[in-house]
Amino acid sequence: MAYPEQFQGFATNDPKDWAHPKLTSYQPKNFGNRDVDIEVECCGICASELFALQNGWSHEPMTCLSSKYGPKTQVVGHEVVGKVVAVGPEVTLCKIGDRVGLGAQASACMQCSRCTSQNEQYCQNSVSTYCSKYPDGYVSQGGYASHVRAHEQFCFPIPPEIPSELVAPLQCGGLTVYSPIKRNIAGKTNPKVAVIGIGGLGHMAIMIARALGAEVYAVSRGYSKKDDAMKMGAHKFVATSEENWQQSLFDQFDLILNCASSTTSLDLNNLLPCLKVNCNFISVGLPHVDEDFRVKPFTFFRNGCNIGSSKLGSRTEAIELMDLAVKHNFRPWVETIQVSEAGVSEGLTRLNDGDVRYRFTLTGFHEFFNTGKQ
Amino acid sequence: MAYPEQFQGFATNDPKDWAHPKLTSYQPKNFGNRDVDIEVECCGICASELFALQNGWSHEPMTCLSSKYGPKTQVVGHEVVGKVVAVGPEVTLCKIGDRVGLGAQASACMQCSRCTSQNEQYCQNSVSTYCSKYPDGYVSQGGYASHVRAHEQFCFPIPPEIPSELVAPLQCGGLTVYSPIKRNIAGKTNPKVAVIGIGGLGHMAIMIARALGAEVYAVSRGYSKKDDAMKMGAHKFVATSEENWQQSLFDQFDLILNCASSTTSLDLNNLLPCLKVNCNFISVGLPHVDEDFRVKPFTFFRNGCNIGSSKLGSRTEAIELMDLAVKHNFRPWVETIQVSEAGVSEGLTRLNDGDVRYRFTLTGFHEFFNTGKQ
Repeated sequence: MAYPEQFQGFATNDPKDWAHPKLTSYQPKNFGNRDVDIEVECCGICASELFALQNGWSHEPMTCLSSKYGPKTQVVGHEVVGKVVAVGPEVTLCKIGDRVGLGAQASACMQCSRCTSQNEQYCQNSVSTYCSKYPDGYVSQGGYASHVRAHEQFCFPIPPEIPSELVAPLQCGGLTVYSPIKRNIAGKTNPKVAVIGIGGLGHMAIMIARALGAEVYAVSRGYSKKDDAMKMGAHKFVATSEENWQQSLFDQFDLILNCASSTTSLDLNNLLPCLKVNCNFISVGLPHVDEDFRVKPFTFFRNGCNIGSSKLGSRTEAIELMDLAVKHNFRPWVETIQVSEAGVSEGLTRLNDGDVRYRFTLTGFHEFFNTGKQ
Repeated sequence: MAYPEQFQGFATNDPKDWAHPKLTSYQPKNFGNRDVDIEVECCGICASELFALQNGWSHEPMTCLSSKYGPKTQVVGHEVVGKVVAVGPEVTLCKIGDRVGLGAQASACMQCSRCTSQNEQYCQNSVSTYCSKYPDGYVSQGGYASHVRAHEQFCFPIPPEIPSELVAPLQCGGLTVYSPIKRNIAGKTNPKVAVIGIGGLGHMAIMIARALGAEVYAVSRGYSKKDDAMKMGAHKFVATSEENWQQSLFDQFDLILNCASSTTSLDLNNLLPCLKVNCNFISVGLPHVDEDFRVKPFTFFRNGCNIGSSKLGSRTEAIELMDLAVKHNFRPWVETIQVSEAGVSEGLTRLNDGDVRYRFTLTGFHEFFNTGKQ
């Protein structure tokens, strides 16, 4: 039995086995009236996959194992690009044959105050693209797979100018940094943005902040990524290994965007004074469940700054972001890996080791899954 | 020797003796070109005084004891109302005979980007009204005194409609809550504000938020202050001693203003989800130096909210606040205490015990210091 009754994907059911997902068949979620089936063409590898497969975001067993419905294994992947091959009877936002992108969110109620105000990413009933329960108990399955099923709201039209393997990382990572940059510099004159952590998220943040008109400071531990950061479009580079690196940065930034996935190594008591009055330090890397922010209220007090987080972005923002990439001609820096059990394992392992500059996209899904014929 | 060479005030030099300041004479700071001498008429008692006199904001000895200049004792008080009795040669913002207010800030550089953008409270060279060093090493002395000397920028004109003992608490406490409320609800339609902690700051925050057009929720542990909070103008009252108090408050507030002076007892993981998307939790009570915020990034992530702080307010905001109090006819709830060593001791001790509803103003300065003759 194959599609549409069964999807195929790379799955694991044991956090110890996070680096070795195996090819598996599983039943997709029930097909809803506004659902869309995407035949996957390629899929980016996001750091979220490591936290999910290693169970680093939870003290409970992996969500999929407690599922009453669907597979007892977990397929990850939420930077999907593919072709629409089926649409529910109420779908109006895309049609069969369209090339679409799917990020880290697959469903929302679409009725609450957040959903109706272009903040559907913050819907209380949001369902993530993988590792997340639908109301019936089914645990969502991601895009390292032949197909993915998701609500049409989260299937974004892709402009023809951008190749699939390069637009894939914009669906989650790109959108995750676009939304807070856009929201925090809106209405500011000559905004300055600091991007901390020049990795998968950070490298896109540099390009996006520049395209949005900000003066961009790339902040990294040492100098190893300086040349790359400047090529990405950073105006200035700051190495925090330098003593007193923060001295010349006092009162400079309209936004500090933390793209590092751990918060514990951050020197918040030196970083926050670099913000202008009442501006925000926003962390987009979701760390291990046991990590927390620890800051002295005195530090906030000196410039009335805030710290916070941001989750993904709205459909509107996803579409804006892709238009921005076309207009300003920036693309994520992508290394492609041919999809297979070995390819998935290589991608996850190298990402875990930090051996990526700056994003992987798994490609060759049609060949591997014998799809792409429609 | 008396004024202008010497001021008199109630001072201590030992944190153990915080409740017993003694009448002392001391030399004021050098008289600057933009300085103003205020002959004190009355002075509010702010919780800051307890932290300062008990040395709770520092691991170092009291600032005054390490001073090379001026007194080796500390006079506190920064909700001063009095009459201008001397002005430096460059003063233009007030004149001799004016009734003025002085809050918690006595000086700033008046040249930096913050000072020139109505954020002088965040000037890096700000000098607080007491316990703070001037560039020459002199440690500032507060308003439990016959006179106070301060830069004209921080001497605010007081509208004639408000009696001195009632306008005194607006100079620090009132301004401290006005600034973040105004800044955080600016441009919002039908804003909702939660005020946590119905004490000295909180009771003014309720009145101010209401006058600024917000729907105000007063949040307290139990019900003991409910009647008072409603009289102050709260629209709703929330007791966090009720189980699941937060359930009906999900996604409600444009601002949560924390007016409690300790952060450790706050249930941030339940409070933050009550904020609307991308809104702020602002803490204005400055806690003990050893306290910090500890929050899980996951909590921020669910609504993209922020936590932060806010410091005092600008001169512009101080003047706006007093105009608002006149226009909307609200006044702090004040119990007056006759100034004297015994009166100061009573005020500090009762404030430390929480025995105040909701603000003390020390009065009778003219009689005690034999001033008010000019």
